[in-house]
Amino acid sequence: MFEFDIHHRDGLARVSSFHTPRGTVTTPMFMPVGTQGTVKGISPEELLNIKSQMILGNTYHLMLRPGEKLVEAHSGLPGFTAYPGPFLTDSGGFQVMSLGHMRKITEHSVTFKSHLDGSLVELSPERSIEVQEALGADVIMAFDECPPFPAEIPYIRASLERTARWLERCVTVKKKPEQALFAIVQGGIHEELRQLSLDLTLPFNTPGFAIGGLAVGESKEEMFPAVEFTSRRLPESKPRYLMGVGHPEDLVAGIALGVDMFDCVYPTRTGRFGYALTDDGRLNLNSSAPRQQLEPVDAECDCYACRHYTRAYLAHLLRAEEMLAPRMLSLHNLRYLHRLVERARQAIEQGRYAEWADEWAKRYFKGKVPEWFAHSIHSR
Amino acid sequence: MFEFDIHHRDGLARVSSFHTPRGTVTTPMFMPVGTQGTVKGISPEELLNIKSQMILGNTYHLMLRPGEKLVEAHSGLPGFTAYPGPFLTDSGGFQVMSLGHMRKITEHSVTFKSHLDGSLVELSPERSIEVQEALGADVIMAFDECPPFPAEIPYIRASLERTARWLERCVTVKKKPEQALFAIVQGGIHEELRQLSLDLTLPFNTPGFAIGGLAVGESKEEMFPAVEFTSRRLPESKPRYLMGVGHPEDLVAGIALGVDMFDCVYPTRTGRFGYALTDDGRLNLNSSAPRQQLEPVDAECDCYACRHYTRAYLAHLLRAEEMLAPRMLSLHNLRYLHRLVERARQAIEQGRYAEWADEWAKRYFKGKVPEWFAHSIHSR
Repeated sequence: MFEFDIHHRDGLARVSSFHTPRGTVTTPMFMPVGTQGTVKGISPEELLNIKSQMILGNTYHLMLRPGEKLVEAHSGLPGFTAYPGPFLTDSGGFQVMSLGHMRKITEHSVTFKSHLDGSLVELSPERSIEVQEALGADVIMAFDECPPFPAEIPYIRASLERTARWLERCVTVKKKPEQALFAIVQGGIHEELRQLSLDLTLPFNTPGFAIGGLAVGESKEEMFPAVEFTSRRLPESKPRYLMGVGHPEDLVAGIALGVDMFDCVYPTRTGRFGYALTDDGRLNLNSSAPRQQLEPVDAECDCYACRHYTRAYLAHLLRAEEMLAPRMLSLHNLRYLHRLVERARQAIEQGRYAEWADEWAKRYFKGKVPEWFAHSIHSR
Repeated sequence: MFEFDIHHRDGLARVSSFHTPRGTVTTPMFMPVGTQGTVKGISPEELLNIKSQMILGNTYHLMLRPGEKLVEAHSGLPGFTAYPGPFLTDSGGFQVMSLGHMRKITEHSVTFKSHLDGSLVELSPERSIEVQEALGADVIMAFDECPPFPAEIPYIRASLERTARWLERCVTVKKKPEQALFAIVQGGIHEELRQLSLDLTLPFNTPGFAIGGLAVGESKEEMFPAVEFTSRRLPESKPRYLMGVGHPEDLVAGIALGVDMFDCVYPTRTGRFGYALTDDGRLNLNSSAPRQQLEPVDAECDCYACRHYTRAYLAHLLRAEEMLAPRMLSLHNLRYLHRLVERARQAIEQGRYAEWADEWAKRYFKGKVPEWFAHSIHSR
């Protein structure tokens, strides 16, 4: 259980299998986000059809509503949501920072006002693990603080040191052997702080490690060196999870840097706003041109929307504010990211990842490939 | 083509096949409404899964947006919407009355302001047929006026006489033999006006007849005698379509009175508001009890939602304003009505329709079966 087998390597990139109680997943992989116990608008059957592997659940949201006890009464997230495969839950740390009001952080815990009803809620390492054990995911995350960007170096340092002490409390209190606890490395975009966090975190030898504290407002030029610095120093033999990332270009660059797992609300959120991800960049179906186009959103895509609908039809649904539009664009965008990592895996297997990523980028960036991206994909 | 074969009779009720260019449908049937070129939130694949047979499209909505030319460029509604089965389009007459602003009715046409942008639009029998030929449904409807309820008898009389003259113009201008034009009988709830409309309409001998002008605000006690009066006087050998109806009890009563086809936005609309149709009546998932119930919405239902989700989960999705809630409740409600007519067909085949309807009603109305319903199901 939680064995991680590397099958192919190409530079820092690798294709691996990660074994969980609810099935084996192949990495690199993108995990759709099911914040409130549903990937917005998408059924479990559709998630399986588009070859989703592991679904994310949110401790913060689910503990507030409907409460983890109700999810537990359904035998956890698979019973509650009817998605039969592996789940990962985050610890709530990130959402407390981004959604909670009037939060107060102490050594013991974080106290905040619920964004739903203003009630006072406390979340600690112990409580986060308790909730995550009730939610019953295959992979659970250590309770951390994710400082905002920008933050002062002394603050980030104190925060990551506390996060490491919280990690120890998570490891101590965790009871269920069928759940893998991943530790989270913090440190913002500062190498010395990333190194400190690594030094404090790696000794716990958890079955996987996450790179946290990124994609919170810094530029890609600032973020990717931090990804590379951290990824290079994480153990080869454990899965690496870049939290809250990302965009197609982030996946392609992150994989080159040795990242195995990604999650982000981006594909479903941008889909709800009428945007479709393609190899030619993001297609805006709210603009006027697609309204007359009788071709699919993405002729190379095998999702239901691309096999059945024209751009004109989807653009019509958007204008008419029909629910089928966000549903179908979310589905396509998730499938696009899944296909992207599938193609990445194939390129790694063929030992031509950098070449493939170069080609992909030329079309995606329309010739103007950014420096951070080129640097990432050519890292060895 | 458009042959109507009656296989079983039980009182006025019958089980029949109606042959259309895109497939044979079995009646009695309920037709999901795809107002703007989509049954709200539901994919064509799901419509086929729940055994939908014929889908309704709206001339008024589709001519205004995206315009019938775009639908025609997709080879009509099946190409545009990706639903591969039979379609029926209404004529726009009803929507002009209910949605158009500042409408002006003359012998020639109706002029109204679009509810979308206030632009002045004209709809005439000729224009309605032109639009419906572009939309390409299998069954198209004659352009009619549906007077509001209540309306003065002289107004209803003048209106239905004009509707009959419009029918003649529809028949004259109609070009496509692969489309069946159904005439609409008006006359409100007044027998003498229904008779007049029948006298003016039946001579056209169209391949089917609709009972229009009902479910516009009158009581069920007023409506069902008008359904019975009209249905008894429509030809046995043609399908009878009760427009804009209905609720489960309306279907069970209408079938007893010899109605073959129904359509209504009710199942999807009430689903979006959090209500589920069941044999025990309408279940309100917004109320507090379902939040803790680990059973499906309807244990007897075979829809995706009932096979996968608890009431507690769906109630959670509703509170969390998640798109999957209206989607799944719409799907269930459509399947409920399809299952209801499937059970009705079986009861007719077994020659025990009134018995079955009696039993169904006892549970549905919780013992208080209304007089109009009891009278309808015992009509012979």
